[in-house]
Amino acid sequence: MNRERLIQRIREAKSYLCVGLDTDLSKLPLAVASEEDPVFAFNKAIIDATLPYCVAYKINTAFYEAQGAKGWTSMEKTVNYIPSTHFKIADAKRGDIGNTSTQYANAFLKNLPFDSITIAPYMGEDSIKPFLQFEDKWAIVLGLTSNSGAMDFEMKKMEGENGRKLYEEVIAKVSSWGSINNTMFVVGATRADEFLNLRKIAPDHFFLVPGVGAQGGSLSEISQKAMNKDVGILVNASRDIIYASANADFAEIAGLKAKGYAEDMANYL
Amino acid sequence: MNRERLIQRIREAKSYLCVGLDTDLSKLPLAVASEEDPVFAFNKAIIDATLPYCVAYKINTAFYEAQGAKGWTSMEKTVNYIPSTHFKIADAKRGDIGNTSTQYANAFLKNLPFDSITIAPYMGEDSIKPFLQFEDKWAIVLGLTSNSGAMDFEMKKMEGENGRKLYEEVIAKVSSWGSINNTMFVVGATRADEFLNLRKIAPDHFFLVPGVGAQGGSLSEISQKAMNKDVGILVNASRDIIYASANADFAEIAGLKAKGYAEDMANYL
Repeated sequence: MNRERLIQRIREAKSYLCVGLDTDLSKLPLAVASEEDPVFAFNKAIIDATLPYCVAYKINTAFYEAQGAKGWTSMEKTVNYIPSTHFKIADAKRGDIGNTSTQYANAFLKNLPFDSITIAPYMGEDSIKPFLQFEDKWAIVLGLTSNSGAMDFEMKKMEGENGRKLYEEVIAKVSSWGSINNTMFVVGATRADEFLNLRKIAPDHFFLVPGVGAQGGSLSEISQKAMNKDVGILVNASRDIIYASANADFAEIAGLKAKGYAEDMANYL
Repeated sequence: MNRERLIQRIREAKSYLCVGLDTDLSKLPLAVASEEDPVFAFNKAIIDATLPYCVAYKINTAFYEAQGAKGWTSMEKTVNYIPSTHFKIADAKRGDIGNTSTQYANAFLKNLPFDSITIAPYMGEDSIKPFLQFEDKWAIVLGLTSNSGAMDFEMKKMEGENGRKLYEEVIAKVSSWGSINNTMFVVGATRADEFLNLRKIAPDHFFLVPGVGAQGGSLSEISQKAMNKDVGILVNASRDIIYASANADFAEIAGLKAKGYAEDMANYL
C-alpha cells in the first residue's frame, strides 16, 4: 500500500488505529480452543470484529514463532486473511548483514503479502536497504521504543555537533536512506515528550506508535503532539483490544474496544 | 551447553570453528534437489561431513523464514539433528519489549534445542533479560558487526566520561546484566583492530566471530588478537564452507574446507 492510499484510508475510516495481533496461545478463550487452528480462528474473529474501526493490523511474529512451524502457518493464514484495504505490518524487528536482510525482506515483503516490516537499526545502512527495494512496501525502523530499556542506548547522547541522542541520530540518518514513501519509524506512546522534537527531525514521516493501553501511553497526548498535516501516525493497541474479554464474547468486546479508540481518534482528526 | 563443557569441547576437538548453515534453496546442488526436504538433506550431509572439525553450528533463521512454514520445519529438523556434543546457535538477531522477547526466548531456547540465540541490543535491558533465564543457555548480543553499516551507529562515539563508542557501551553494559556463563558478544572478523580494546572491556566473555571467508576477515589475525586464556572465541564460516562445491561432492568438499580451518586453529591453540 502506498502513502497516498494509506492517508486516504485513514481519512475514510476516520481512524489511525492499528490492531496488534500478539496472539498468545495460552491466553486464548475457550471458545476457540477446539478449533483446528485456534490462533487463526481467534485472529479471524478479531479481524472480522475490528475491521471497520482500524486501518492496519500488526502481527507480532514472536508469538507465532513460539508455536514453531504450526505458528508460522497461523501467521501466513492471518496475513492472507486481512483484506487489501488494511495496512499489514510484520512486527518482526529484523536486521542483519545485506545478504541476510535480503532473505528477511523476501520472507515478509515478497513471499507474504505484508506491506511492511519493523527493523532494528543497530547494524546500519546495508542492514536496512534490502527492505527498501519493493514498490509500495515499507521498512518501519525502530526509533524510540516504549520500553524502559530505551534509556540504556536509544536515549544516550552521541558525541559531536548537536549532542543528538542515539535515536535522533538513527531517525536522521535512516531518513536519508529511504523516503517518506517507504520508511516509517517506531516511536513509543510512552515517549510523548519527545514527539515535538522528533517532528523537527522527521516532519513528514509516518510514525508507528505502540504503547497505548497495556503500556500506559496516552492517545490524546500523542495525537496532539505527533500528528502532522497528513495525520502521520498509526497508533497500535494490542493486548488492550484483543484480550479485552476472555469469554465467548471476546470478538464482540474487542470490536467495541476498537470502536472506542476510533471514536476518540475521529475527534483528534 | 555450559561454559566449562564448551571450553572442554574446544580443547578436545582442537577447533573453535562454527559452521554457519545459511542454507539458500536457490544455491543447493542438484544432488539434493529431488529430496523431499532439500534444505534439511543438504544440512544433514554438511553436518555429517563437518562434525569432527567444528564445535558449533549457527543456523541463520532468515534463510529458513524465506521458505515459510516449510522452511521453519527444515530448521527444526536441522537443529534436532545436530548432536548434543555441538553448540547450537540460532542466528536470529531478535529483541523486543520484555513480554515479546520472552516469546522469542521460548521459541528458540525452550521449544527448540538451541543453546543460544543472537540478540540485537538496541532496545536495552528488558529486551535482553528474558534470554538470560534459561540454565546453560546463552544470549549472544551484537557488539561490533562485520558489515559496512557498523560505521553508521556501532562505531559512533557516545558523549560522556570515556568517549566510548556505542558498541563498547553495549558490551560494557550488557556484561553487567548477564555473566560470562550466559552471555557472549558478536564481533566481526573484519574488525580485528578493535579486538585488543574489546578484551579490556570483556576479558573473559566468549565472542562469536563471523566474517572470515566470504566477508574477508583473517583467521590468523583474530586468533592472535581476540583469544583469551579459555580460548574465548567461536569463529564462524558459512558460505566459504557450505558452498565450497556446487556439485555432488559438496559435502565432502565442505568437510575438507572445515578440516582446513580446524588444522589452522589447532596451530593457534
